[in-house]
Amino acid sequence: MGVRPRESRPVRIQNYFPILDWGRRYNRQTLASDLVAALIVTIMLIPQSLAYALLAGLPPETGLYASVLPLIAYAIFGTSSALAVGPVAVISLMTASAVGRIAAEGSVDYASAAIVLAMLSGLMLLAMGLFRLGFVANFLSHPVISGFITASGLIIATSQIGGLLGIRTQGHAMPELLSSIIGNIGAINWWTLAVGAVSLALLLWIRLDLKNWLARFGVPKGLATIIVRAGPVLVVFLTMAWSAGMDLGGKGVSLVGDVPQGLPMLSLPVFNLDLISQLAVPALIISIVGFVESISVAQTLAAKRRERIIPNQELIGLGASNIAAAIGGGYPVTGGFARSVVNFDAGAASPAAGAFTAIGIAGATLLLTPFLAILPKATLAATIVLAVLTLVDFSILKRAWSYSKTDFAAVAITMAGTLLFGVEMGIALGVGASILVFLYRSSVPHAAIVGQVPGTEHYRNVKRHKVETVPGTISIRVDESLYFANARYLEDLVLAQIADNPGTRDVVLMCSAVNAIDMSALESLEAIHHRLADAGIRLHLSEVKGPVMDKLEKTDFLSRLAGIHLSQHLAITSIIAAQRESLAQGTTSQ
Amino acid sequence: MGVRPRESRPVRIQNYFPILDWGRRYNRQTLASDLVAALIVTIMLIPQSLAYALLAGLPPETGLYASVLPLIAYAIFGTSSALAVGPVAVISLMTASAVGRIAAEGSVDYASAAIVLAMLSGLMLLAMGLFRLGFVANFLSHPVISGFITASGLIIATSQIGGLLGIRTQGHAMPELLSSIIGNIGAINWWTLAVGAVSLALLLWIRLDLKNWLARFGVPKGLATIIVRAGPVLVVFLTMAWSAGMDLGGKGVSLVGDVPQGLPMLSLPVFNLDLISQLAVPALIISIVGFVESISVAQTLAAKRRERIIPNQELIGLGASNIAAAIGGGYPVTGGFARSVVNFDAGAASPAAGAFTAIGIAGATLLLTPFLAILPKATLAATIVLAVLTLVDFSILKRAWSYSKTDFAAVAITMAGTLLFGVEMGIALGVGASILVFLYRSSVPHAAIVGQVPGTEHYRNVKRHKVETVPGTISIRVDESLYFANARYLEDLVLAQIADNPGTRDVVLMCSAVNAIDMSALESLEAIHHRLADAGIRLHLSEVKGPVMDKLEKTDFLSRLAGIHLSQHLAITSIIAAQRESLAQGTTSQ
Repeated sequence: MGVRPRESRPVRIQNYFPILDWGRRYNRQTLASDLVAALIVTIMLIPQSLAYALLAGLPPETGLYASVLPLIAYAIFGTSSALAVGPVAVISLMTASAVGRIAAEGSVDYASAAIVLAMLSGLMLLAMGLFRLGFVANFLSHPVISGFITASGLIIATSQIGGLLGIRTQGHAMPELLSSIIGNIGAINWWTLAVGAVSLALLLWIRLDLKNWLARFGVPKGLATIIVRAGPVLVVFLTMAWSAGMDLGGKGVSLVGDVPQGLPMLSLPVFNLDLISQLAVPALIISIVGFVESISVAQTLAAKRRERIIPNQELIGLGASNIAAAIGGGYPVTGGFARSVVNFDAGAASPAAGAFTAIGIAGATLLLTPFLAILPKATLAATIVLAVLTLVDFSILKRAWSYSKTDFAAVAITMAGTLLFGVEMGIALGVGASILVFLYRSSVPHAAIVGQVPGTEHYRNVKRHKVETVPGTISIRVDESLYFANARYLEDLVLAQIADNPGTRDVVLMCSAVNAIDMSALESLEAIHHRLADAGIRLHLSEVKGPVMDKLEKTDFLSRLAGIHLSQHLAITSIIAAQRESLAQGTTSQ
Repeated sequence: MGVRPRESRPVRIQNYFPILDWGRRYNRQTLASDLVAALIVTIMLIPQSLAYALLAGLPPETGLYASVLPLIAYAIFGTSSALAVGPVAVISLMTASAVGRIAAEGSVDYASAAIVLAMLSGLMLLAMGLFRLGFVANFLSHPVISGFITASGLIIATSQIGGLLGIRTQGHAMPELLSSIIGNIGAINWWTLAVGAVSLALLLWIRLDLKNWLARFGVPKGLATIIVRAGPVLVVFLTMAWSAGMDLGGKGVSLVGDVPQGLPMLSLPVFNLDLISQLAVPALIISIVGFVESISVAQTLAAKRRERIIPNQELIGLGASNIAAAIGGGYPVTGGFARSVVNFDAGAASPAAGAFTAIGIAGATLLLTPFLAILPKATLAATIVLAVLTLVDFSILKRAWSYSKTDFAAVAITMAGTLLFGVEMGIALGVGASILVFLYRSSVPHAAIVGQVPGTEHYRNVKRHKVETVPGTISIRVDESLYFANARYLEDLVLAQIADNPGTRDVVLMCSAVNAIDMSALESLEAIHHRLADAGIRLHLSEVKGPVMDKLEKTDFLSRLAGIHLSQHLAITSIIAAQRESLAQGTTSQ
């Protein structure tokens, strides 16, 4: 009988293919916008894809592979016109953490485990979409996700210090990472450090100053933006040239090394039950984190254009993308924040922009792979560091602290858990803590004695408002649904009020905030009624909501009560009337 | 600012020793009542203690040991005058299930693991009492505990079929038990079956008919009651005599066998970390189940005498009892239903009755142990079957079904889980399912569009009541606290209403049922406000509760709203006034 959000769409085949909808309206102008956006995003994605694959512990070309088919799959199944899917920092770290537990980095098993992870994650997302289970993502609260992303950003930046110094590091949580950095600091390679420092400085300058600098030289704003976006690619070419010219590889600088030519063969991952059982939980966490990250970006951008994102269809879109990533030899992907904003700003008008980006990346893969061998890994490490530092945002701690200590606790636990124990434990601790806090709070609900706000029919807390009460009558408003976890608390609460107020003859439970009464709570209410009746006190209920009333009417509890009143005001007026009547008759009840 | 149950007692040392309180008021009359009750309970406990120890997979005398020191500990620390602690059926089964995973039944390791289990459980209960963590027991809802106890009763009864037929059985869940019974049915021993059948028949007759039969012979009611209580002991003596007279042992009937003489030496259990880590989870579950069972009995009986049970002190009392059980060579104990009712009916006036019972059992142990060797185990199996059949109560399924399908699901899942997978899994599934259902429900809250009940200031669901609404104004009452799990749902809900009602100019969120707004929900409210503002729609809040208001006032959200109204009625009247004003000025907003 209540209201719900717009009913789920009817299950029609075209609803699962948004491309059938926007494809019909596609025209020359949309095509032009999409092509421009695709070009800019392609240029931006090349170094990022290489770098994130390295972060995931995979060969750099895997990042390129993961930026082709998934974009095409999303273009078919996704609902956002601006979302750009592909490898992202946090999911790359989570992949490294999950796969690193199973196989040694660089081994064939490692790469195929990453593919299985993408496949599992894709199937899970698809299943969540088809069975409309997207609500599970709601349990990843905003404070938890914020804390998680900040902590992940710190871990990722720290994990790249090794790449910038030319030393080996290991681990996907702070303690192991830091101790391996400190332990190997002696093996620092100064040439690597030089490449890393120069790349970092150039990338920083490109991001902060290049645009102004170009403007000073009279470069038009549009062109300047494109040059800035192309900056990281230029840094890649520059350090490649440096590497080739000065034989950096011979000086001990770690290079990307030989890369298979061309695009990978499409293939289905080889499944085995053991691998699946080891990767199922990480795949689920990656799916949910990826979905939450992606849908927030999609919805933020959609709101700016008054478009509508359909969460369950987004699950299907991301699921298809990950399955495509697995088939195309990649690893788990999701919608990325930075690239989607760039795509949006560049004017992407439909998901087709993503498909064009995919074609661009495929072309770049064919062109680039012969030259990648001489690219210093330090350049990619610098790219990662700069990209992830935008993820780090400690202000959430301050905002949460000032709003509520429990929200703060959720952020702090997630952050500390992620930093100390890694990504999966961090998420699990954060979600677990949020749920436990919610359960604990609902088990010791707020309650207020209420009285009438003079001149109105409105009843509020006697401790907060100047209100009027009726002698011999206690009105208790319990601010929580009554269920097993607080049923006993309710009993204690009511009986303590009676004990503290001898002379009470009527108790009204004001149920305006009681959204459900389960069987345990019903038994507690019966126990309360019983004890009050023994003491000659009448129990009334007021403002019982419709759905709760429906349940109670199935029992004989209501018939035993002194009264069930539509509103608190009617309860009080009828109690006063009954008192007057009993006075008039010269009788005293009990 | 709300009300809470009576504040926790001040931490004073005498509060932890209720004996200091009731001991002061102890007199000759209380002593007489306690002695009579102790005598009756002692007679009742002897066969039960032997039988439950056997059920726990322990030597029968362990049951006697577990009925001495724990009763004395409870007399010192407990708050119920009628509760009788000791070995009980469900906890015995749980002990067998937990310890059976670690050691072979009958081995020394098995007995010492049971002692460690009692010690761990005692320490956990003590800690929960000292740190006032008794609320965790609230998460074991009534439907879950009912389903659990019924299923446990069935498992226990089934597990005794082997003892009644003289065949070996194994397992603590139905599938294994049934298959071992069917597999060994050929090895049935007819003499054992005879002893079992006679014992069962006699016990049943004693329970159902003996009292009437005695009355017919003019035996006074009081004496008749005592004879009925002593009935099971008489059956024990009878089958002992049968066993000795006909050499049942020589005929293949399983006997209790040699038992150590006298009382056990007091000793501290030998701890090792491995054992502790294996037993920690079962100990926690046993503690919580034992506490819930015990406190329900204690509170039921206390209510009849207008006494007060202090839950946190009960935890301390049960903790001390279990530690005492461990020191005295027993196994986990708790307050039993049947024996406590007998204790109560027999007039136990203080916890001293328990201490006298302990002395009685200690005396019986000294007297009985030489003769126990010839007692057929089938007699004890018959005692168990008769005791646990009172636990089996399928009516909870029917009651839950008619009240609510989710409560029914909780019962059914707990029952099925316990029967199929054993006690620990059953409890875990039941509690897990209850919490998941609660979380799911709160993540898709009920909401209603409300209108004014004519002639009152009361606002109710337009679909349930004949109410009046104001054109261009939508009032939505959301019946749930707003938190991370339903924040996004709220956004969808409000925006769908706006989409369905073009021409809306004011939206009122009626917050009478909103007991908290966390940070995620605040962000959703801000997003809602933003989108409404973009569409030229004003957002109002009404009936925001004090604690929620305190939080919101820390942010700048309220200042951006069109209005925050004390009551829904004030919201509507001010909206109407504003509409009139804008009409009078001949202007139209937006």
